[in-house]
Amino acid sequence: MNRICELLGVRLPIIQAGMIWCSGWELASAVSNAGGLGILGAGSMYPEVLRDQIKKTQAATDRPFAVNVPLIYPSIEEHMASIVELGVPVVFTSAGNPKAWTDHLHAHGIRVVHVVSSVKFALKAQAAGVDAVVAEGFEAGGHNGREETTTLCLVPAVAEACSIPVIAAGGIHDGRTTLAAFALGAEAVQIGSRFVASHESSAHRAFKDAVVEAGEGSTRLSLKALTPVRLLENDFAHRVWTAEADHASPEQLAELLGRGRAKRGMFEGDLAEGELEIGQVASRLADLLPAADIVASIEREYRALSAGIHDPHFAWPE
Amino acid sequence: MNRICELLGVRLPIIQAGMIWCSGWELASAVSNAGGLGILGAGSMYPEVLRDQIKKTQAATDRPFAVNVPLIYPSIEEHMASIVELGVPVVFTSAGNPKAWTDHLHAHGIRVVHVVSSVKFALKAQAAGVDAVVAEGFEAGGHNGREETTTLCLVPAVAEACSIPVIAAGGIHDGRTTLAAFALGAEAVQIGSRFVASHESSAHRAFKDAVVEAGEGSTRLSLKALTPVRLLENDFAHRVWTAEADHASPEQLAELLGRGRAKRGMFEGDLAEGELEIGQVASRLADLLPAADIVASIEREYRALSAGIHDPHFAWPE
Repeated sequence: MNRICELLGVRLPIIQAGMIWCSGWELASAVSNAGGLGILGAGSMYPEVLRDQIKKTQAATDRPFAVNVPLIYPSIEEHMASIVELGVPVVFTSAGNPKAWTDHLHAHGIRVVHVVSSVKFALKAQAAGVDAVVAEGFEAGGHNGREETTTLCLVPAVAEACSIPVIAAGGIHDGRTTLAAFALGAEAVQIGSRFVASHESSAHRAFKDAVVEAGEGSTRLSLKALTPVRLLENDFAHRVWTAEADHASPEQLAELLGRGRAKRGMFEGDLAEGELEIGQVASRLADLLPAADIVASIEREYRALSAGIHDPHFAWPE
Repeated sequence: MNRICELLGVRLPIIQAGMIWCSGWELASAVSNAGGLGILGAGSMYPEVLRDQIKKTQAATDRPFAVNVPLIYPSIEEHMASIVELGVPVVFTSAGNPKAWTDHLHAHGIRVVHVVSSVKFALKAQAAGVDAVVAEGFEAGGHNGREETTTLCLVPAVAEACSIPVIAAGGIHDGRTTLAAFALGAEAVQIGSRFVASHESSAHRAFKDAVVEAGEGSTRLSLKALTPVRLLENDFAHRVWTAEADHASPEQLAELLGRGRAKRGMFEGDLAEGELEIGQVASRLADLLPAADIVASIEREYRALSAGIHDPHFAWPE
């Protein structure tokens, strides 16, 4: 039995990442209905918006789903109150100390998963009592660790160090990369960019198209002097990279970033001036698909590859 | 049949990376004798040294081995003349245009493999007629691509784009990461850091010990304004990182780097002032081992994992 499927009450160990401006109730419920775990990205939602999104998700699916809460969220008490009151079964926490909320959520029967980018923080999360960790590598979109450890190096290290199950994230988008994650010791995968480019994602259509059209080398880990974030190349990103090359101060970078750019880019579709967060695998995506088709094709490809592991490709000479 | 084993005439699709100052005849012959492909790293050898190393390798093994030649090497004609004259069966080229020498080497019956860090260069290498490519990701030690594409993202992209076989490199050090590479579409792995920390590596013992003791996050891709290279943290690396943060010019960085630092660090064991090139997986290595034990344990672990792919860990609920 897969420990993540058991823990989260899902059929498939395929988790859709909570992503600001991209993962509302339509995407989360579609992924959960397809047998994976859908996640609402609460980092970009006002408290009343999150309540509304949770209710809409519950109306659209009777399967488990989760809310992702960045622990630095300013009105976090209100988010957590809604989660408890409305009976959300699973919470993914990130960007903060997992001790802060884990016991409280557990006391209400809620499963807690924490996102980490190093063994050090994985062990802290395990000590804080979380039920599982997401080990997210350098290639992932959005906010990211300072050590720049890639998924291939991070996942086996975290899986070896922790007794709780590990979910691999960063660079995973299909059955092939999912099988690789399992070979590395993961018991589930968390997938972001592939679901941004889905019919149900709340990303603006222009951003979805830009993700599908992205070429090799078109993302870069940026703004390391603030919080590292992987950005898709556009006018704004080039200004950031020029400022960084010109040794801009953190204050200058914060001013350049300003406020509301992520919404402007990913939700409102301003491809020139918006902040476009996406993973390296954007260059591997060729089409916009229904979320259910994405889940089904990952399952199909994973099963075919793992069933065929004795095929000539995997067989070494004796 | 594994195409790389067939192409190179080896029993196992395990290739030891050619690494300056670390991979002389003792390591190369040990790996070849163990059933993999050993490689002499010619980038740090004078022409007469390479000739001597080739002869010593041939005296120590009757199995195939290779020479890695950076195509920017100043006396490359002499290197290539020795390779042809002494009957080296395989050449790995890197850092330059694969068109330059491929036809010449082929005309002498020598197999040619080229190292790339992007699909774009993989297709150029294939068009130049090379027999296989090494797709090397961001996590690899030593010199590296500018796009920062990780092994997990790079290998499936290259494998899908090319018809020639793909060897995965970067972050691979054991059976688990080797199986992941095969899941991604690779037909062999090239392993560097793990073989630096071997008995037969020509690295200085102090450098080997530093590799084994390296912790999480202790390497960083550095000197991007010159040629990107992944360095292990030490006094010199910290001076580079400070200079980079202070917006040093390429000329200032070149002056800071100076000449001979790689030899000073990796070969002479100056851990403070030497340039120490190593991959992210250094933090995963716990011991110095004989090269043959490394090859055997990778084979054993790979076979066990791939034979056990129907075990509970890999089995998804129906």
